[in-house]
Amino acid sequence: MKEYVAKYEDLYKIVKEMFIGIGYSDKQATAVTNSLVEADARHIHSHGTVMLPTYLGYIETTGCLKLDAPDPTVVHETPVSFVMDGHSGVGYVIAETAVKKCIKKAKESGICVAAVRYANHYGYAGHWSEMMADEGLIGITSTNTIRAVCPTRSAERFLGTNPIAVAIPTVGDEPRFLLDMATCVMAYGKICRSKVFAESGVLPDDIVVRPDGTTVTDFPEAIEVVAHGDTPDKIPVEPTGGIAPLGGTTELRSGYKGYGLAMLVELLTGGFSGGIPSKFIPYAGEGVCFFFMAIAPTVFGDPKAVLEHLKYIIEEYRKAQPISEDMPVLMPGDKERHYREEALKNGIVLSDDIVGKLRAVAQRVGKETEFEKVFTVKE
Amino acid sequence: MKEYVAKYEDLYKIVKEMFIGIGYSDKQATAVTNSLVEADARHIHSHGTVMLPTYLGYIETTGCLKLDAPDPTVVHETPVSFVMDGHSGVGYVIAETAVKKCIKKAKESGICVAAVRYANHYGYAGHWSEMMADEGLIGITSTNTIRAVCPTRSAERFLGTNPIAVAIPTVGDEPRFLLDMATCVMAYGKICRSKVFAESGVLPDDIVVRPDGTTVTDFPEAIEVVAHGDTPDKIPVEPTGGIAPLGGTTELRSGYKGYGLAMLVELLTGGFSGGIPSKFIPYAGEGVCFFFMAIAPTVFGDPKAVLEHLKYIIEEYRKAQPISEDMPVLMPGDKERHYREEALKNGIVLSDDIVGKLRAVAQRVGKETEFEKVFTVKE
Repeated sequence: MKEYVAKYEDLYKIVKEMFIGIGYSDKQATAVTNSLVEADARHIHSHGTVMLPTYLGYIETTGCLKLDAPDPTVVHETPVSFVMDGHSGVGYVIAETAVKKCIKKAKESGICVAAVRYANHYGYAGHWSEMMADEGLIGITSTNTIRAVCPTRSAERFLGTNPIAVAIPTVGDEPRFLLDMATCVMAYGKICRSKVFAESGVLPDDIVVRPDGTTVTDFPEAIEVVAHGDTPDKIPVEPTGGIAPLGGTTELRSGYKGYGLAMLVELLTGGFSGGIPSKFIPYAGEGVCFFFMAIAPTVFGDPKAVLEHLKYIIEEYRKAQPISEDMPVLMPGDKERHYREEALKNGIVLSDDIVGKLRAVAQRVGKETEFEKVFTVKE
Repeated sequence: MKEYVAKYEDLYKIVKEMFIGIGYSDKQATAVTNSLVEADARHIHSHGTVMLPTYLGYIETTGCLKLDAPDPTVVHETPVSFVMDGHSGVGYVIAETAVKKCIKKAKESGICVAAVRYANHYGYAGHWSEMMADEGLIGITSTNTIRAVCPTRSAERFLGTNPIAVAIPTVGDEPRFLLDMATCVMAYGKICRSKVFAESGVLPDDIVVRPDGTTVTDFPEAIEVVAHGDTPDKIPVEPTGGIAPLGGTTELRSGYKGYGLAMLVELLTGGFSGGIPSKFIPYAGEGVCFFFMAIAPTVFGDPKAVLEHLKYIIEEYRKAQPISEDMPVLMPGDKERHYREEALKNGIVLSDDIVGKLRAVAQRVGKETEFEKVFTVKE
């Protein structure tokens, strides 16, 4: 399959220009481009620049992503917390505003917890945890999402993919710990965009639940189920099926734990913010709610000693022997960091499909010449 | 199989007396009995009164549970946090001391986070989250444990079962949300004490990992692997195998997410407290570390409105239709609460095996007459 390569800074520049071309302000374009290009560099392509045409669709067809929304406002605040209303604006700007405030307050008070309502898609969750870790803080975030996942024992698509991301800084040459995981058994993008499943026509069992509650391994049918019956403004009356929680659908493999984590995210986000749950968030993502927490290492002692000890623990776990020498034991975050380093050195690789979608937007905003200069075909 | 029934208060009384009989102080006996009898009432028998003979073994054979340890001491404190040293005393007393302090500080500051080192087994994690929820707070806890679980891609038993428990209070007749989950695919007790697996001789695949990294379905062999090679004071030199993380061993079913959560717990507990990781905690549990967090609903707004909104979210998810009418969709905590209500009404049911083990202790401490009066054979 054809692939293209672009330098990080070139891709960043053209994507930001394209966002401005479709009506984003400089601030909005910067916030969203920061995240999307980073996602592509980390091979998290489901949350990468491919979202640009998606957002354009949201703006034009559903009107649920408002570029002229008022700035986010704080509706409640204490020395260790705040609740914010995003007024259905650009999720990335809302998240950035909240995270910066969270960082400031955690530096003052030791901890800050924040819940945000009426926001919009904020990309890959780890981006915001890392923004806190960049300031030397432990950074936690979560978001509810469009409805995609079925609770244990149900075929109703009531839960979001509901990621949880935690970044924990360390010191010296030990990179930070970065866990960034959806609470479902397989991410939406991993199912729908898998070449392996598409070519074989088979999805592993216990990943996708049919409307009648049985699970499906036929790939085209699974895709149909996952994409089925959702409209931007209505909850389907009948169960539509969806993705299984982490652990799958059975009690035996603890599917109820993934469901429990997803339900916890509903409470942390829509619950604490006074916002809406994933159940009521149609495919375009309007009304998504965020949760953030920043913790200063100083709350646990001398910060240098705390970070040194975290480093020690991680190093002890790095000593785990791999079963197979060609499959090294990884720490959460290692894989994405490795991809990122490679991308900074050799460029970001994008599929023909993604480049095609971006090209259509470039043509529309009159940037096709600049666009073509950014990409070379990968050998 | 023969089973016995005991009234909650009768079982409580005799168990507490037996703890005092083996040398626990009244305070120590109260703290441990509170948790063990509650666990049995909730059918969490792996963390119930069966632990009494286990703890007696720890005290007598390994000396790693010290009844005469100094009181826990605070080694670092801020308005929103503290770090505590448990001096290898009774885990339940250490946890109770920490949770009470956490509650007090969260009521004053809005949030309190605490890490505890050199503690010992604190029973089922949900007990401590609920103690915080009883005071109207969001209660979070985690603990590292004896080594039991293999990281993704490794057959080394480096991680604990590392539970995460979150209790979120609501209002009115909607009971609280209570998630209490080990981060491995199946709990140690569920594997070892399963009648179903023992009778069929077969364990489902991808639960237990052999020392060579393959997975095992032969039940006797699986038991041997899970119980293998551990000594109270030494880390095995060769990989011993162990339990797989939540999601199993494969990347396809996101086993790395369970591993990531387990690793997160290592950092929250041994990491933040300056204590030791599960890797260095042999079977008797000395040196286990705890993590606690209490959050007052006031940090998110008017507490009544916050709890009402949490109730609303939970009620919306209770509307999920079950696939099968005889398998209702549950909220985390429902099952245990149902068992508890039944136990308060009809008594706590214990297996012949557990009662036999308790009887041996009763005889030893000269309480056999009182002991026999507590139990009747279940019809």
